[in-house]
Amino acid sequence: MTKLVVRAFSISLDGYGAGLDQSLENPLGVNGMELHRWAFATKTFRKMFGQEGGEEGVDNDFASASFANLGAWILGRNMFGPVRGPWPDESWRGWWGEEPSYHLPIFVLTHYARAPLEMKGGTTFHFVTGGIDEALARAKEAAGGRDIRVGGGVATVKEYLHARLIDELHIAVSPVFLGRGENLFAGIDWRELGYALADRVITPNATHLTIARKA
Amino acid sequence: MTKLVVRAFSISLDGYGAGLDQSLENPLGVNGMELHRWAFATKTFRKMFGQEGGEEGVDNDFASASFANLGAWILGRNMFGPVRGPWPDESWRGWWGEEPSYHLPIFVLTHYARAPLEMKGGTTFHFVTGGIDEALARAKEAAGGRDIRVGGGVATVKEYLHARLIDELHIAVSPVFLGRGENLFAGIDWRELGYALADRVITPNATHLTIARKA
Repeated sequence: MTKLVVRAFSISLDGYGAGLDQSLENPLGVNGMELHRWAFATKTFRKMFGQEGGEEGVDNDFASASFANLGAWILGRNMFGPVRGPWPDESWRGWWGEEPSYHLPIFVLTHYARAPLEMKGGTTFHFVTGGIDEALARAKEAAGGRDIRVGGGVATVKEYLHARLIDELHIAVSPVFLGRGENLFAGIDWRELGYALADRVITPNATHLTIARKA
Repeated sequence: MTKLVVRAFSISLDGYGAGLDQSLENPLGVNGMELHRWAFATKTFRKMFGQEGGEEGVDNDFASASFANLGAWILGRNMFGPVRGPWPDESWRGWWGEEPSYHLPIFVLTHYARAPLEMKGGTTFHFVTGGIDEALARAKEAAGGRDIRVGGGVATVKEYLHARLIDELHIAVSPVFLGRGENLFAGIDWRELGYALADRVITPNATHLTIARKA
């Protein structure tokens, strides 16, 4: 059965999942890169970026599991790029070059319609204007029984949480303060929504939280 | 040299240091007690409450260290009691009975003057109306070179953090979501203020964070 999951989602000690002022130079916002050090050190991520070596322990297990059994992704529009408002043209094709490492259908939430964008290697970006329910329905159809991963950003994860649609999350708390940015816990009551900690594992680079929705 | 410290300060995974609606029945706010399970399980805390037994590992080491080398405490007024506004009379004498386990001078921040309250066993509550600087100056005078512990609540810790007056914090993150309440990270930029993680230790009941102010 298809699950809707969040995996390898990095936040700071103070709960920020991205810095402020996302831009072409700063896709993760100011200082946002620091949240992902644990991931970039793993063999799984290094391989994805065409690099050798990398960490092969617990962090890598989480990184590797984050890509397991996926059939589709859902992304907020700001995860797809820095363009805001109506698409000026179709020149922005994502952060990831002509052959993104997703290799899956990606459903991008946006208020502005755009034709599907087929990249090399099996990744197609579909632009969904009907909100989170439509994106989920279409992703389910595409996923063929495998899981659907909500890739972010913070606002998109919170929208799906608020609707109690997420089944399971792996959140990696990086050992840094960000101080400002988009906070994963502000303005949303995880407890009332029925989410609870299922597991906690510490490594030198992160505290890995596994969180499940109660039945 | 006297340090200003926060120790054994418990928060939830989502950053709340107390629940909502503090009252006589709920001194820590709704569900706030869950934040302190790790502490109440330790030998140190059990002994303080006149009970036998208790955990003697890492949690207990942190609990025990939280009382080491203290010369005075500073508390926000809500830590002292549920009374708000002007003191109707002097009948409220703290949550802790006639012989509080502090055994030290305690400086209580309040907008409303009140005569010092001398309890049994060496604890005296001093009511400070001049704000955090006056409380710190008086606590330093009383501490005789030992450390001063800011006991809370969240608002008081944040006031001292904001002024960069706190030297070191031990924060215990309990493995629960609180969902709402007083958030230790909201509206304050720990990073900009110069605070950074110095150490992280995990136990079944808590993730212990040691945080220091950069020089």
